[in-house]
Amino acid sequence: MTNSSSITETVDAYIAAWNEGEPERRRALVGQAFAAEATYVDPMMSGSGPDEIAGMIGAAQQQFPGHRFVLAAGPDAVGDHVRFVWRLEPTAGGPAVAVGHDFATVTGDGRLGDVVGFLEQAEAA
Amino acid sequence: MTNSSSITETVDAYIAAWNEGEPERRRALVGQAFAAEATYVDPMMSGSGPDEIAGMIGAAQQQFPGHRFVLAAGPDAVGDHVRFVWRLEPTAGGPAVAVGHDFATVTGDGRLGDVVGFLEQAEAA
Repeated sequence: MTNSSSITETVDAYIAAWNEGEPERRRALVGQAFAAEATYVDPMMSGSGPDEIAGMIGAAQQQFPGHRFVLAAGPDAVGDHVRFVWRLEPTAGGPAVAVGHDFATVTGDGRLGDVVGFLEQAEAA
Repeated sequence: MTNSSSITETVDAYIAAWNEGEPERRRALVGQAFAAEATYVDPMMSGSGPDEIAGMIGAAQQQFPGHRFVLAAGPDAVGDHVRFVWRLEPTAGGPAVAVGHDFATVTGDGRLGDVVGFLEQAEAA
């Protein structure tokens, strides 16, 4: 990974961070995905800066054992903004338990700045 | 309209501004919907401040005579951010020619700050 990342690499690192259970590897992925001044907010949680965001993701993972995040659509960029859709689905297969639509600013080096997560209706079981 | 607007009133004024063909009334609606320091960007146009945004909307309307914007979903707020979906459809009825997903910051008085418009796939004819 170079200092300047493509938005696809950045979003891949973001999804990987949400799926990484080992704290040190997760923190490294968060550092690839988020800028140093990044913020994150969704209807259930928020964090400011990579350290806090990495801890927030770790706490969220405790709520969803046996599940993984999958990129469902995007990334789709407009100017220095990007959006993408993710699904949280059972690792063993089956319908998603949550679907989210994330919007973010993109910093000069291709990392995420301010991320806002909205929740879609989950798929029917 | 008071100085402090609900986000529903703000988004209603935003949609009304996109549908208002008379420049003075459109500028008034833009002033209700957008903060003084507001910016707008989508894949086709951008504007900064209510005067420029009102002019931008007027220019865009020239491209779509006989069409109107309709709020299709939302507004859905997370913290001081909001999103909503609109459709551009023939005034006489029929499938939408464009569908957009707008994301915006919300200022302290309930107006839109920075608006980013993404385009969805239009409906099949």
